[in-house]
Amino acid sequence: MRYQLYYWPSIQGRGEFVRLPLEEAGADYVDVARRPGGESALLRFLNGRALATPPFAPPFLKAGRLVIAQTADILLYLGPRLKLVPKAEASRLWAHQLQLTVADLVAEVHDVHHPIAGSLYYRQQKKEARRRAAQFTAERLPKYLRYFEAVLERNPAGDRHMVGRALSYVDLSMFQLIAGLRYAFPRAMARLARAHRRLAVLHARVAERPRIAAYLASARRLPFSEEGIFRHYPELDA
Amino acid sequence: MRYQLYYWPSIQGRGEFVRLPLEEAGADYVDVARRPGGESALLRFLNGRALATPPFAPPFLKAGRLVIAQTADILLYLGPRLKLVPKAEASRLWAHQLQLTVADLVAEVHDVHHPIAGSLYYRQQKKEARRRAAQFTAERLPKYLRYFEAVLERNPAGDRHMVGRALSYVDLSMFQLIAGLRYAFPRAMARLARAHRRLAVLHARVAERPRIAAYLASARRLPFSEEGIFRHYPELDA
Repeated sequence: MRYQLYYWPSIQGRGEFVRLPLEEAGADYVDVARRPGGESALLRFLNGRALATPPFAPPFLKAGRLVIAQTADILLYLGPRLKLVPKAEASRLWAHQLQLTVADLVAEVHDVHHPIAGSLYYRQQKKEARRRAAQFTAERLPKYLRYFEAVLERNPAGDRHMVGRALSYVDLSMFQLIAGLRYAFPRAMARLARAHRRLAVLHARVAERPRIAAYLASARRLPFSEEGIFRHYPELDA
Repeated sequence: MRYQLYYWPSIQGRGEFVRLPLEEAGADYVDVARRPGGESALLRFLNGRALATPPFAPPFLKAGRLVIAQTADILLYLGPRLKLVPKAEASRLWAHQLQLTVADLVAEVHDVHHPIAGSLYYRQQKKEARRRAAQFTAERLPKYLRYFEAVLERNPAGDRHMVGRALSYVDLSMFQLIAGLRYAFPRAMARLARAHRRLAVLHARVAERPRIAAYLASARRLPFSEEGIFRHYPELDA
């Protein structure tokens, strides 16, 4: 099966949570919008009227005749196929539940720099962003980190993985989350180092996996930037 | 199986998207936190350190030995058991994808009245809320309504249901969404009536289903209020 991933071609964004499992599994996939003419293909999907199961927004994945949108739904589909989630239903529901909590945090990170509207520029909502950022770094960020750290700590199979005894797509998402948060909020993350020691170890171990390391060193890995979800604006990282 | 639902006892909130399918299916369930001592039981779950699969936030569902949090994950689990989703994997992924888009809209509705922080009062972020509300009712709300309307319109099995040819949990979620949006934004929703005619019909048909009608008329259905997610502040509905 050759998977076709559709996502905005210039940012990591939500698409990165899909790219990482595809890379880790050595899957056959095309990052469609990064090819010549690919962004038009993405827009045709979004604006077309023919598809009975239209995506609301990227990322979406074409797998044979299926078109699946919503990052967590894509991972629900890919997880078993890429062998990146345990087999038992209880474990899959648990992995998915964690992924949905990752998605909630990602949405909050986005709204730190866009608290009024995604359609306005950051400079048009800087004042509100500053206020939201102060609340985010003081309350929400520590709460999420403590939660994910507790999940690692309580894993009956040990604190090397979020779910069960082997690498899952949730571990890859935690890697991306820690990487993004460190880029966007270096000072807040340094201050919170003690609250997420196990997560930091998990991040380092994922980065060293041969296929992930090769991916991160390749041109396929886009850099973090102030166009994406994780943006470094020093004034929001007090 | 007796299901135990844990959710804040005084609001519809996200819990309502779980209550509706349980009611429609005539399932055996307990709304734990609305019983005497129930809210303490909910807080023990949230703050306890024993559970290997802790919820980040309510709602969560206890089903035998499973504890499942995240509204959409709960519905992923309940859907097949309550016969409120088609059997084929492609249909289940599609239903879940739609539910995740419902969740995104619900989060945006919440942030209209709380654009800075959930831990602050509305009156502490009124000015920012007014700005976000103007963007929400002008851009995001019409975009979401047009999307869900198009899903109904394009359903190959007909525009009576969101997924396939029978009632699913997604239809129940659309009912709750339309009800809540009408409560919170009556003027904006009236202005957008033409953009969601099929959704309005779906809302009316769900409300007439015998078990849903009985539930809505019962004390089990909490009223909308300015403590919940869908809040009516006239200044946010210009």
